[in-house]
Amino acid sequence: MTSLLDNIKDNADLLEQMSKVMVTKTVKKGTLLQKKYDENSKVYFVKKGCLRSYTIDDKEKEHIFMFAPEGWIISDIESQVNNAPTELYIDAIEDSEIEIMPRGNADELFFAKEMVDNIGISRLMKRISVLQRRVIMLMSATALQRYNDFLEMYPNIVQRVPQKMIASYLGITPEALSKIRGQLAKPKK
Amino acid sequence: MTSLLDNIKDNADLLEQMSKVMVTKTVKKGTLLQKKYDENSKVYFVKKGCLRSYTIDDKEKEHIFMFAPEGWIISDIESQVNNAPTELYIDAIEDSEIEIMPRGNADELFFAKEMVDNIGISRLMKRISVLQRRVIMLMSATALQRYNDFLEMYPNIVQRVPQKMIASYLGITPEALSKIRGQLAKPKK
Repeated sequence: MTSLLDNIKDNADLLEQMSKVMVTKTVKKGTLLQKKYDENSKVYFVKKGCLRSYTIDDKEKEHIFMFAPEGWIISDIESQVNNAPTELYIDAIEDSEIEIMPRGNADELFFAKEMVDNIGISRLMKRISVLQRRVIMLMSATALQRYNDFLEMYPNIVQRVPQKMIASYLGITPEALSKIRGQLAKPKK
Repeated sequence: MTSLLDNIKDNADLLEQMSKVMVTKTVKKGTLLQKKYDENSKVYFVKKGCLRSYTIDDKEKEHIFMFAPEGWIISDIESQVNNAPTELYIDAIEDSEIEIMPRGNADELFFAKEMVDNIGISRLMKRISVLQRRVIMLMSATALQRYNDFLEMYPNIVQRVPQKMIASYLGITPEALSKIRGQLAKPKK
């Protein structure tokens, strides 16, 4: 299992500082790690298992923002950047092993220039690219196109995540998703 | 008018390299700068005026991804990151003065570590934060909430941009937008 620290193993100073504040934790499926309006949003690195982030609208409906299987970083970046309370809930949808960077430290360390340099500008650029695609898909793509895009983005989790969560991520009903999957499963004539 | 180069004026080497490849251009309202499937997507910095990026769906409907008034950078980041043809159209919605960084140079220079450091990690983080908000709003917010969010994001362009473009950005019909504006204009009792 990869650790977030693997990214900075060549930088002894930063590695030591990070090791001091970073907490490794094993959490059971269903554990709520962060809820809306939390003051101290954190950064989570997934070593094993799967987390998700989501919002709940005025009608109590859940909307999944993203999934984070092994190797992904998940956080409420907006609350980090604006130093504001969180908007997103984050919970474990499988038994997971995670590395947690507390908020105060995230400000000083995780987003320190050295750390970002080591984690890689390319990772930030990649995230912007993924979000750009997500917005475009939400605005202009059909449900089928969005599902295919989901499969491409998360090739390894489609069998692990409940259908209703995938539907929530796609912004469609579970029934609509079931229909799409039925169409795709049919052998082409 | 600010120039993109103002961000790197302390770095003489980079400034010289950038100045050599960066083109300043005055474009008329309506000028199409980039269309879907272009191989050489570019990075545009807006000195004056306003650009927008958008996609066109299978039914020929436009969906506005973002606006870029003075001081904003606009580009198809996904095509830059994946070295792929562009997805987004970019055009000028006002007479504009822009700085253009050609693709080849963008790879080598614009996304060079030094350049990103100078433009600022914080600018990349801010963009991620804005896109996170955009996705959440598209998925879970009412049209009124989305409109208020637009006003917050772009406080200075609401009077400059045609209503139908704002509606397209929000993912609602011009009629729905007109209704919202009517409600907001009414004095509260």
